[in-house]
Amino acid sequence: MANPLTRESILDAAEQVLRRFGPSKATVVDVARALGVSHGSVYKHFSSKAELRDAVVERWLKRTSDPLEAIVTNNEPPKERLRHWVEALMTSKRSKVTADPELFATARELFTEASGVVDRHIENLSGQIARILADGVEAGVFDIADIEGTARAVLDATARFHDPAHAAEWVDPRSQEAFARVWALIVAAIARDRDNR
Amino acid sequence: MANPLTRESILDAAEQVLRRFGPSKATVVDVARALGVSHGSVYKHFSSKAELRDAVVERWLKRTSDPLEAIVTNNEPPKERLRHWVEALMTSKRSKVTADPELFATARELFTEASGVVDRHIENLSGQIARILADGVEAGVFDIADIEGTARAVLDATARFHDPAHAAEWVDPRSQEAFARVWALIVAAIARDRDNR
Repeated sequence: MANPLTRESILDAAEQVLRRFGPSKATVVDVARALGVSHGSVYKHFSSKAELRDAVVERWLKRTSDPLEAIVTNNEPPKERLRHWVEALMTSKRSKVTADPELFATARELFTEASGVVDRHIENLSGQIARILADGVEAGVFDIADIEGTARAVLDATARFHDPAHAAEWVDPRSQEAFARVWALIVAAIARDRDNR
Repeated sequence: MANPLTRESILDAAEQVLRRFGPSKATVVDVARALGVSHGSVYKHFSSKAELRDAVVERWLKRTSDPLEAIVTNNEPPKERLRHWVEALMTSKRSKVTADPELFATARELFTEASGVVDRHIENLSGQIARILADGVEAGVFDIADIEGTARAVLDATARFHDPAHAAEWVDPRSQEAFARVWALIVAAIARDRDNR
């Protein structure tokens, strides 16, 4: 290969190899072969197969969390911003299933192995929600005793709409109404003015 | 077989046959053979394989919903009764995975085929929650604008803790805290006295 071997190009190749062979069969040698380099060259960037796998999962999850970060810091009022954020998370997951179901299935398999990376991702998402909630408390529109706990609860209470375990249900047109009902429950829980529900 | 052929004995046999052969391979002839009767005798009770399958699923789901019905009408205060009800649903699903993982996996496969029966089951569960919520509104402890919608939202918001799609996560000891956080969110949404959170 003419191009220099970068971390990114290895991750691109690893993603393709994982998709093609599946997480249990894919090896670092396969990744090196796809790049036309020795496996030693790959090991200069990633010291083990597990480290390479974790980096693939981390990059994959950042494709979800990075665009959400932009919503956290936008100018919308906190309630609209929170809904916008949750809907963007739902849309992001759904578009990934639709765009490349095979890669999505591969990623889900990898998630169970890279549980540390996934835990950090969930803490990151929960932290993003917490910052919107804190803005709402400061602005006097939310009334929340435990911001961190509530942020995590919002993520868990909406799992049906963004957790890959429910991907098969997302085609059901009723899931839109179902989300509206859960959203109303969340707003009732956090809005200072309860008549604002 | 010496015993008379009843609906219940056919369902018992069908459950065993489904577990052994899987939903796609099991036939009415297999069920009849397991009972030592002709398939004509089975068809006297169930007019098609689909009807027999739906009856198996319905009976399976009633094992969850019937004991919950007893909680709906007990004497606990509504808030405690609702938590008790949701925890009983969680315990029921968890004990079914633990007791017989194979049958649980078979049941999940059947659910996707018997969607009408599953929809009625979910409406039944949601209706049970709605009755507890209505009792709480009447007793002045809950403040809920849309009882039916909130009931369904409570079921959906707790999916992570009782929906079979999440069975693999239930072994995680952190799921207890996760439930406590979602429960606090639900109470904040429905309790009349917000300081009661």
